Amino acid sequence: MRNPQLTKNGELQHLLTLDGLPREILTAILDTAEPFTEVAEREVKKLPILRGKSIFNLFFENSTRTRTTFEIAAKRLSADVVNLNVSTSSTSKGESLLDTVDNLCAMQADMFVVRHAASGAPFLITQHLAANGRNDIHVINAGDGRHAHPTQGLLDMYTIRHYKQDFTQLTVAVVGDVLHSRVARSQISALTTLGVPEVRVIAPKTLLPAEVEKLGVRVFHDMREGLRDVDVVMMLRLQNERMSGALLPTPQEFYKVWGLTAEKLALAKSDAIVMHPGPMNRGVEIDSAVADGAQAVILPQVTFGIAVRMAVMSMLAA
Amino acid sequence: MRNPQLTKNGELQHLLTLDGLPREILTAILDTAEPFTEVAEREVKKLPILRGKSIFNLFFENSTRTRTTFEIAAKRLSADVVNLNVSTSSTSKGESLLDTVDNLCAMQADMFVVRHAASGAPFLITQHLAANGRNDIHVINAGDGRHAHPTQGLLDMYTIRHYKQDFTQLTVAVVGDVLHSRVARSQISALTTLGVPEVRVIAPKTLLPAEVEKLGVRVFHDMREGLRDVDVVMMLRLQNERMSGALLPTPQEFYKVWGLTAEKLALAKSDAIVMHPGPMNRGVEIDSAVADGAQAVILPQVTFGIAVRMAVMSMLAA
Amino acid sequence: MRNPQLTKNGELQHLLTLDGLPREILTAILDTAEPFTEVAEREVKKLPILRGKSIFNLFFENSTRTRTTFEIAAKRLSADVVNLNVSTSSTSKGESLLDTVDNLCAMQADMFVVRHAASGAPFLITQHLAANGRNDIHVINAGDGRHAHPTQGLLDMYTIRHYKQDFTQLTVAVVGDVLHSRVARSQISALTTLGVPEVRVIAPKTLLPAEVEKLGVRVFHDMREGLRDVDVVMMLRLQNERMSGALLPTPQEFYKVWGLTAEKLALAKSDAIVMHPGPMNRGVEIDSAVADGAQAVILPQVTFGIAVRMAVMSMLAA
Repeated sequence: MRNPQLTKNGELQHLLTLDGLPREILTAILDTAEPFTEVAEREVKKLPILRGKSIFNLFFENSTRTRTTFEIAAKRLSADVVNLNVSTSSTSKGESLLDTVDNLCAMQADMFVVRHAASGAPFLITQHLAANGRNDIHVINAGDGRHAHPTQGLLDMYTIRHYKQDFTQLTVAVVGDVLHSRVARSQISALTTLGVPEVRVIAPKTLLPAEVEKLGVRVFHDMREGLRDVDVVMMLRLQNERMSGALLPTPQEFYKVWGLTAEKLALAKSDAIVMHPGPMNRGVEIDSAVADGAQAVILPQVTFGIAVRMAVMSMLAA
Repeated sequence: MRNPQLTKNGELQHLLTLDGLPREILTAILDTAEPFTEVAEREVKKLPILRGKSIFNLFFENSTRTRTTFEIAAKRLSADVVNLNVSTSSTSKGESLLDTVDNLCAMQADMFVVRHAASGAPFLITQHLAANGRNDIHVINAGDGRHAHPTQGLLDMYTIRHYKQDFTQLTVAVVGDVLHSRVARSQISALTTLGVPEVRVIAPKTLLPAEVEKLGVRVFHDMREGLRDVDVVMMLRLQNERMSGALLPTPQEFYKVWGLTAEKLALAKSDAIVMHPGPMNRGVEIDSAVADGAQAVILPQVTFGIAVRMAVMSMLAA
Repeated sequence: MRNPQLTKNGELQHLLTLDGLPREILTAILDTAEPFTEVAEREVKKLPILRGKSIFNLFFENSTRTRTTFEIAAKRLSADVVNLNVSTSSTSKGESLLDTVDNLCAMQADMFVVRHAASGAPFLITQHLAANGRNDIHVINAGDGRHAHPTQGLLDMYTIRHYKQDFTQLTVAVVGDVLHSRVARSQISALTTLGVPEVRVIAPKTLLPAEVEKLGVRVFHDMREGLRDVDVVMMLRLQNERMSGALLPTPQEFYKVWGLTAEKLALAKSDAIVMHPGPMNRGVEIDSAVADGAQAVILPQVTFGIAVRMAVMSMLAA
């Protein structure tokens, strides 16, 4: 079966997930993002690449941070951006997701940036567009349930390549609440595709999905052991808000065992970088001294995120 | 008395309601919208007609769908758009509607797009502007209570003219919850002005306003009888959210008697078109097979709505 | 200690409060605003001064009115504006204010317009920026708790200068709920700096802050006495929403003693002007006949507010 994200010529039609995206496409996105980094860093203010295009930020759940990064990326490419908080909109009058999409298609959007609490919603939208012959509209998944958040995964890859150049020489550890993370799946998938020989997952058993064994990763339940000699530490946010009952450790308990401290980080390579997708729980999954320390590249991740989103938008619109 | 929507030269000063708007103005709006359809359909990306103008979307009740269509229309004319959700704003600090308007006037808006739960609010605003000599500011009613929603009425007229050309040869049926619809009044008024010889209203007695007899329409309480040989079927949304108690049929009951099915539609002319203002209640006032069928022009209505709003804005600003 | 709002060359780096801002800077802002008044009044539609700049409206509490004036000022200078209602955002996921700021810095904003319920929040942000060497980002305080609202104070000064020219010949009265007003502090500070020889504060004892004596003003507890022969009457809004219990007069009681009526206003000079920061409580602190009367300059204040905000933004960006 053809990857639903690609055209029959193998070009990017939508960005839904990093799972199954070929190495060439991943690399093409990262390469395209390189010159946009100048814009993200404001050496260049603005480019006219998307002038006259309409980008719809279609947020079925609220996420100011993610919405803002896409809005900035689009505006720096000179697009017109329309923000739709659909949670408070027609859907509350009983309109179906696909009727809402049909209406926005009839308003002739060029791109939908979709955030939805339900896994698979952006994929459903692309199927519907295909069924209606609307190949002119492109969908970017900005986070769907626990499923995927591909631009986050891409900015992580961009960050790793920026600091470590060659994926094929690296040991990378993904640490923390893998179970509730849509970021972790995209990360692991992309790391593997890009040729990272050893991807480690470090987590308590209660915060690991059952299918983790199938992902081709090495699983550690001891943080010190798992961090030994890694090049990259990718921390995850403890998703307290998605937990309940017995699963829920206190922040203090979690920090004691799973928090990244300077002492634990010292077990990694001396030039290891520390990443976090934000927002951080300081003193829970990460110590402030590490978050603000010399090895942290957490804020460059945000800047690179603008460049990567510009790259994805410009490739889809091309 | 002079129509408060027109200047003394007979040009459009505000758009508040289609009631009493002369045929020449209605036709001029539809004619102006014709070339903008190219922009609505994105053959042309953008026009500089409103560059430097400030359009204020002044929404005293939330309506993402309507706000979005005006925002898109304004941006495709290169205007600056400022969205104000006034429901959560100064009015909650006890400021009066007219003090809010005075403030926005002092910020030198060029146009107010007004949505308000109270019938007559946009008219009140235009009276206030006139009393203050602010002829430089134009008001577009984007829906006031049960009163009017003129751009919806105009896009309906545009759609009918697009598919049927000559109004004077048509039989048009307006079907469903006329009582709670601000769309129906605008539609009936405009159809009559544009010369449609037979306008039918098909509805249960409980969902008809008392004054329907005065509108010059033929009333049917039997759907099959009313649909016979019509050229245009204009469905209305069942406004469940505005009903209470005894008036409220179950969706199943309503659908059985008043839902538009393929079998009922077969009684209309074979080339009859089916319209709906959205959002649709599928399986309540309309069957999915009809909504997605070959005779439905529901999504073109949305596209034409952008063109019509561009036309109104450009005429007001001229 | 150097004023944290100024660079070491004495230029404006941030605008946090009018307290301690030198007369030359205040005057420079008012002078810069003069030509922008043509834009605020729309004789000139737009200027390209901030083209390509990103202005972030960072509102930790909702204020549609203030947000709108900044958005308009920024757009008329051709900046890109991103609105962030942070109250509903990441901070609710436990992210700290400064982590939020770090993230927005990494998105490479040029300017933050900050509204916060906590006094001192914008100052905290500028300290953090300085500690991180981010001199490229400028902060404008759009109201912090009871502390300051400097652009409101500046537009008041602009209005007084516009109508009265010479500050050094004036008697100015600030009237009403000084205790809960962030506007009053900025006003008194700026009036003194600009050389107004007599600033009067007219208020009930229960609505005066303890430190009022230190501000170098004349305090009156009798409104008629205080208004006698003043050139400028600056009314304050009764902040009912910030009061509780014994402090709270009924609107009727307050109006009887402290409401500005035509009869009381007659005690001021015959060409005295009446100002109000809005939103007004008509029939509480001000009578409608006065609010809409010939001496009121309340709406010009709003227009000048756009010009003053354009001036501040263009000076910070220079």
